[in-house]
Amino acid sequence: MLGRSDTVSLENALQLLQQHLPPCSARKVTVPLDETLGRICAADIYSPEDLPPYPRSTMDGYAVKARDTFGASEKLPAYLEVSGEVSMGEFPGHGPEPGACYAIATGGLLPPGTDAVVMLEHTVTVDDSMIEVVQPVAAGMNIINAGEDVAKDGILLTAGHRIRPQDIGLLAGVGLDSITVFRRVRIGIISTGDEIIPHDQVPEPGKTRDMNSLSLAAQIKNLNARPTFYGIATDEEESLNGMILEANAANEIVLLSGSSSVGTRDLGEKVIEQMGSPGIIVHGVAVKPGKPVIIARAGDTMIFGLPGHPVSAAVAFDLFVRPAIIHLSGLADDDLPRHRTINAKLMRNLSSASGRTDFVRVLVKISKDKVPEAYPILGKSGALSTMVKAHGYIEIAEKLQGLKEGEIVEVKLFD
Amino acid sequence: MLGRSDTVSLENALQLLQQHLPPCSARKVTVPLDETLGRICAADIYSPEDLPPYPRSTMDGYAVKARDTFGASEKLPAYLEVSGEVSMGEFPGHGPEPGACYAIATGGLLPPGTDAVVMLEHTVTVDDSMIEVVQPVAAGMNIINAGEDVAKDGILLTAGHRIRPQDIGLLAGVGLDSITVFRRVRIGIISTGDEIIPHDQVPEPGKTRDMNSLSLAAQIKNLNARPTFYGIATDEEESLNGMILEANAANEIVLLSGSSSVGTRDLGEKVIEQMGSPGIIVHGVAVKPGKPVIIARAGDTMIFGLPGHPVSAAVAFDLFVRPAIIHLSGLADDDLPRHRTINAKLMRNLSSASGRTDFVRVLVKISKDKVPEAYPILGKSGALSTMVKAHGYIEIAEKLQGLKEGEIVEVKLFD
Repeated sequence: MLGRSDTVSLENALQLLQQHLPPCSARKVTVPLDETLGRICAADIYSPEDLPPYPRSTMDGYAVKARDTFGASEKLPAYLEVSGEVSMGEFPGHGPEPGACYAIATGGLLPPGTDAVVMLEHTVTVDDSMIEVVQPVAAGMNIINAGEDVAKDGILLTAGHRIRPQDIGLLAGVGLDSITVFRRVRIGIISTGDEIIPHDQVPEPGKTRDMNSLSLAAQIKNLNARPTFYGIATDEEESLNGMILEANAANEIVLLSGSSSVGTRDLGEKVIEQMGSPGIIVHGVAVKPGKPVIIARAGDTMIFGLPGHPVSAAVAFDLFVRPAIIHLSGLADDDLPRHRTINAKLMRNLSSASGRTDFVRVLVKISKDKVPEAYPILGKSGALSTMVKAHGYIEIAEKLQGLKEGEIVEVKLFD
Repeated sequence: MLGRSDTVSLENALQLLQQHLPPCSARKVTVPLDETLGRICAADIYSPEDLPPYPRSTMDGYAVKARDTFGASEKLPAYLEVSGEVSMGEFPGHGPEPGACYAIATGGLLPPGTDAVVMLEHTVTVDDSMIEVVQPVAAGMNIINAGEDVAKDGILLTAGHRIRPQDIGLLAGVGLDSITVFRRVRIGIISTGDEIIPHDQVPEPGKTRDMNSLSLAAQIKNLNARPTFYGIATDEEESLNGMILEANAANEIVLLSGSSSVGTRDLGEKVIEQMGSPGIIVHGVAVKPGKPVIIARAGDTMIFGLPGHPVSAAVAFDLFVRPAIIHLSGLADDDLPRHRTINAKLMRNLSSASGRTDFVRVLVKISKDKVPEAYPILGKSGALSTMVKAHGYIEIAEKLQGLKEGEIVEVKLFD
């Protein structure tokens, strides 16, 4: 049998994938704070101290006892003596007497006996040592109390959280200098096929340069995972078997690129089945492009047989390998969109077979009237240039037979 | 004067910024193909050869002369002798006689004399050497012609294009092994303020750990630019002056963090003005948070004075430094969204001063009915934890006085 016509729906394939994914690898590494961007917390992180450690001003102005300003207005200001100034970076050992205040800058420590800050804008300078306060403050206004940003032993980040710039800032603020994160997901890539040669060689007639291993490695890097290339296997069982054994031992995921096309397909299927149980879970999904994908699990390693066509391989990666990487990375699911998107007006009719989910590459232009327009790029699925010309893709759901010109479609933009 | 009440609108500030940005640095570097992900093409890239170099099959099936299949149907199939097979990776020296065909797999080279491929699914096997074709093919069907993906000397990528995984695949396919890209934008970071100590030291009372330089460096890395930290300047002119001179000489952009708060503010302003013309372009923008930002240009270096408050610094970075980095990176503007977004239902009223653009941090939850809900996180602008709890932010436009509970708002999700 050369072909394979029995396929499962995209929804079923994704369900089967989710059911068979092994739990996130428990392996953890501790990394310096400035290398944690994009990494996933391996445990809840608690604050070792109060932030700020002491009450501080959040405004430029005057540290006061709030009750000294009660009832103050433009017409009936409160007069306060400016009896001192808080120096930045110094601990004010004493504070103003009742009826007096200290000048204070944003970030300055609140002097003893004061409980609020009057903003500079709500004061009028009378002379060197006297101000009018023209608006009252309540206790706690324009200050941040000790522990108000983060309390000692309060939770900073939860396990499964992806570390963003502001998270690093907060961790720096409480003096945490290294963080325990999940190790990056490791992914082995094997290209297969007698016709494939390394991309930096000149092909003889009949041979073709390996395009997929570099583009798949880049898709993997975009997800903050670690690709390793194991080489190009010929259509001999021994060749593929040796590489896949090596890759299986050292990675959470192994990708065979090209293994689902004829010639290498049956071999790929056979070799994958030999790797361990449960073996092949899905073989063929009702999607276009990407149909001949193989999803398998051997022990704790996920194995994906991706189509040889570069466009199909890229789409199959996005549909199936991407969620597997995200799951294995330990990222907690926040149900938020993972792609940039834009809603655009479809600029031509598109037909699609019912019972199949289609992904159509589109170029997006913003019209003179500022309307985003989606132009489908039709081309052979072997033509990677169609994906290079495209800004993203639209999905035609399984139950639809197409989309009409003028409809508003959601374009998922490429990373 | 401690404070500053004259501000320009966000729109004006962005216009002034765009007008004063120097052109993208012309400096180019050549990098190996597998290191080009996310880099910006410094010149148009042309294909050195046809891709594919020869016509290939895009399906599993039989290479035929199309005219031998004309009129074929289920009821009246065309009978073709299978007189050979195309081996993958080999150049077929001869082709089938008229009325005969060769078995061919996806990716196989079309044998001489054939001009189309009949899909396996449209054939019935009669015996070892004969098939029925039940559907006709036109010349060119199920094949990709030489140069049809990319023609020799055709343009692959244009200058200013950001390199994505599929682009790397295509470049590999035509044998381009290294690419000329723009050098990454270099950004110097200087923290200022007598009260600031390095984040890995234990602060004495009155001192505070440097939070901004690490989080700004992470924001810079997220944009594929290169941060360098120059240290913490005290409130003495000599200290800041030395650092800023050094940073100016080696970077396209210099960030002073904390320089726009009182104490260091006037000093920062003075030192920035001394660096060269045109000097300060914008000082204070009607946004919340982020108001006390300074935008300056000294010669070909952009200098930004960012607020000391971590939240204000992060927002001011996103509003002003981010577009400057993108411009200087050489990225061509495609007018497409740069943030992931989600439309969500606002879960409480928000008020805002008219004449000021507000950015409100929100936590997004997906309700049981699958409705995304945006919960504003209200907290002091000094409290970085508010940004850590948030998934993104919403914008309240300058002309609005607020937003109503129940409105659908667009949330920009944090990177």
